[in-house]
Amino acid sequence: MHLVKIAFLTLGMISIEAGFQASAQTSSPSSDSLLIRQVFNEVLSHGEAHENLRVLCKDIGHRLSGSPSADRAMVWGQQRMNSYGVDTSYIMPVEVPAWTRGDVAEAQALTADGTAMDLHITALGGSVPTPHDGWIEGPLLVVRHLDALDTLDARGNIVLFNRPMDPLLINTGAAYGGAFDQRGGGASAAGEAGAIGVLVRSLTHALDTLPHTGSLRYQEGVDKLPAAAISTVDATSLARLHRKAPGAVQVKMRLNSEDLGTVEQGNVVGEWRGSEFPDEIITLGGHLDSWDIGEGAHDDGSGVVHTLEALRALKAIGYTPRRTLRFVLFINEENGNRGGKRYAAVAAEEHASGFRHVAAMESDAGGFVPRGVRMDAPDDGVAMVRGWAETLEPYNLHFFGRGGAGVDIGPLKNLEPRPLLMGLVPDGQRYFDLHHSSQDIWENVHKRELELGAATCASMILMLDRHAE
Amino acid sequence: MHLVKIAFLTLGMISIEAGFQASAQTSSPSSDSLLIRQVFNEVLSHGEAHENLRVLCKDIGHRLSGSPSADRAMVWGQQRMNSYGVDTSYIMPVEVPAWTRGDVAEAQALTADGTAMDLHITALGGSVPTPHDGWIEGPLLVVRHLDALDTLDARGNIVLFNRPMDPLLINTGAAYGGAFDQRGGGASAAGEAGAIGVLVRSLTHALDTLPHTGSLRYQEGVDKLPAAAISTVDATSLARLHRKAPGAVQVKMRLNSEDLGTVEQGNVVGEWRGSEFPDEIITLGGHLDSWDIGEGAHDDGSGVVHTLEALRALKAIGYTPRRTLRFVLFINEENGNRGGKRYAAVAAEEHASGFRHVAAMESDAGGFVPRGVRMDAPDDGVAMVRGWAETLEPYNLHFFGRGGAGVDIGPLKNLEPRPLLMGLVPDGQRYFDLHHSSQDIWENVHKRELELGAATCASMILMLDRHAE
Repeated sequence: MHLVKIAFLTLGMISIEAGFQASAQTSSPSSDSLLIRQVFNEVLSHGEAHENLRVLCKDIGHRLSGSPSADRAMVWGQQRMNSYGVDTSYIMPVEVPAWTRGDVAEAQALTADGTAMDLHITALGGSVPTPHDGWIEGPLLVVRHLDALDTLDARGNIVLFNRPMDPLLINTGAAYGGAFDQRGGGASAAGEAGAIGVLVRSLTHALDTLPHTGSLRYQEGVDKLPAAAISTVDATSLARLHRKAPGAVQVKMRLNSEDLGTVEQGNVVGEWRGSEFPDEIITLGGHLDSWDIGEGAHDDGSGVVHTLEALRALKAIGYTPRRTLRFVLFINEENGNRGGKRYAAVAAEEHASGFRHVAAMESDAGGFVPRGVRMDAPDDGVAMVRGWAETLEPYNLHFFGRGGAGVDIGPLKNLEPRPLLMGLVPDGQRYFDLHHSSQDIWENVHKRELELGAATCASMILMLDRHAE
Repeated sequence: MHLVKIAFLTLGMISIEAGFQASAQTSSPSSDSLLIRQVFNEVLSHGEAHENLRVLCKDIGHRLSGSPSADRAMVWGQQRMNSYGVDTSYIMPVEVPAWTRGDVAEAQALTADGTAMDLHITALGGSVPTPHDGWIEGPLLVVRHLDALDTLDARGNIVLFNRPMDPLLINTGAAYGGAFDQRGGGASAAGEAGAIGVLVRSLTHALDTLPHTGSLRYQEGVDKLPAAAISTVDATSLARLHRKAPGAVQVKMRLNSEDLGTVEQGNVVGEWRGSEFPDEIITLGGHLDSWDIGEGAHDDGSGVVHTLEALRALKAIGYTPRRTLRFVLFINEENGNRGGKRYAAVAAEEHASGFRHVAAMESDAGGFVPRGVRMDAPDDGVAMVRGWAETLEPYNLHFFGRGGAGVDIGPLKNLEPRPLLMGLVPDGQRYFDLHHSSQDIWENVHKRELELGAATCASMILMLDRHAE
């Protein structure tokens, strides 16, 4: 592209005098537009999201529930909220699991001709170790669906679940959802069939040597098998070997993960009291915990700094919220969602005493360029948000679909009357390349895209505050 | 993000039986949808765009107009079109400039205390060399606008144009357009003011040490000054030094670029004859030439392989075009647009003899995830395309704005009746990080995003073929 002046000038060229202050009391579309323009200007010119994310990823690092670094992240998060001027902040205690990955995750494939191939694996979150932290070994069995084991004898086998994410689904999240059962339920399905260990093809479209972790759930009453994620390149190789000579490939693997019970950590909550309806709450949040490989930069460091930046930016433009705004950094999204459940339980108690959640928004789909929001809400709420489309169009926000809004805020949907739940929808094409892997690091988050996501969160909270009923 | 099954299942989950063949004759919305689903399935499962781009970038390399590698790219492009089954292909000869960058582009800043700072620069396309390929040296003068030189004495100076792209504009292309005058016209503005050399702040939001090249235009009757792009980090440092001690910073620079006159190259054209209206033409294209640093992967290798892949995919699904489809790889977009002008001149002759362009589409904004199209078209054409919004929504195509459709096809707008011109709009947040720099390489193009762009081009051509009037 060479001379694009003409090509691009039609989109996004709203110019607003610096310092203009629209009244928060009026609610005409034009004052919405002016306020949102102020939010984006603030974030794009003085944004702190990228630097906050650097501190979270580099100085604190990954922060699995129960880990000391998750404790440090909670302290840091509360300090940031205080420095940005919340009226109160507190830790809402949550009992979380304290599982550790250990430092051993090894696997090899041995073919009939004696060739050994090292495999790139990492324990699935919550996996038991191999017995006495030693090697297990058995013939490889490759399947693509959990129910394939209903009719196969897997006794003594190590089972590889190898169904790829469907590349034909435009939205990678749908492809992830369609392959997720292998990671979540594969260990118990294989346990029921008599297997001794489990490998799960990493949930990514990328063909590379990175294993992508994530939680599993053991079914009660079924033997708990050690289970690991394996890179897509290795899974593809194993499947090829298995096709050529079924039963002839041996796999050995070794994990020294450990279940350390539970410890008390908590959700970090900051509150900015409403000027008109202080007993009506609008929550914005992301989750502070992350997996313990990589840095949890997109998942969900981005959601954390989106939340902090929304607070900062709304303060910076001099906004006066009508309702009480809550900024929440949830704990334990990745392996238990105990933070989200606890938050909803507290919200239910508040609800009963007249302190009511009107709406909640979550950012937990990465720091990529925002495309809109997804809503889990009553029809009138969805219609209201869709009515904002024209106001949001200059920011390239076009998607206002229905669907789950986020794991952390999901349990709020049981409140009556039901709050409007909303999830940020960033572009998802690159998300699973990095998700739950060693490459989910700060360097792989784009500053401007991160900022646009933060400004979108702030704008949606502002619109909800001005227009929700 | 952990359990996103619910969150994502609402979007993009159209499933079509493999092998289904909709009739190209019917034109109901549902058969449009089925054909487009076939196109996306084909590209996402058997796509060759990513591998074609690898060959273009790695085996052929960058391909500035007039260079031997541009000749090789023409041969390759025509071969690809032939292998994908066009009815005819040919080279449309175009006389193009043969400027070379040379192998020397050096600059230093010298401060009053004797400190020397090396600067990262590269010649602007078309720049004259420094005299006798040697050093020029003069006091640094920093300005932000061309017209600042109207009232400044720049005699003997080396002028740095240092106005950044505006970060507040949501669309980076608009920010590029707003800063472009410095690169295009800075050399002559400084020449008029008596300066001896020019540095232009690289057109990117990124703060780094990469210079980004691009063309300049010398005004007739004004001394031609040697002119180079300088990295944003260096430009920022120079401006700081200049603010501290105006007039006290010396800059020296050296370029050995060379104007080698013109040579004959050409547009590569492939034609697939229409079954119903063979004298009505719909063109799809990108530009084959690139700058001579990096590999021209996004600019515009992506447009080249989008074009080839659209041809391949439409053939692969068994589509029968009603109109004649032209696939065009334009030459010389970057420094002259002689390919686009020549194509329009030929189209005007064809027009006069009843062989009429109905529509044309260009991909020249990168290989990032597509968001829609921009149209330069009569009102009824724009309305028609906007009527396709629901059909295209499952592919996350939401933007159907007005604006320039592309440099290469732009000159076609003078035909009467005016064809519908359309440009692919990929997301632009990362584009200028790489644009015209050494980092515009194959590794920085995302396979799936590239494929989605290709499938979008194919789908739009298909819709134009079925519905244009």
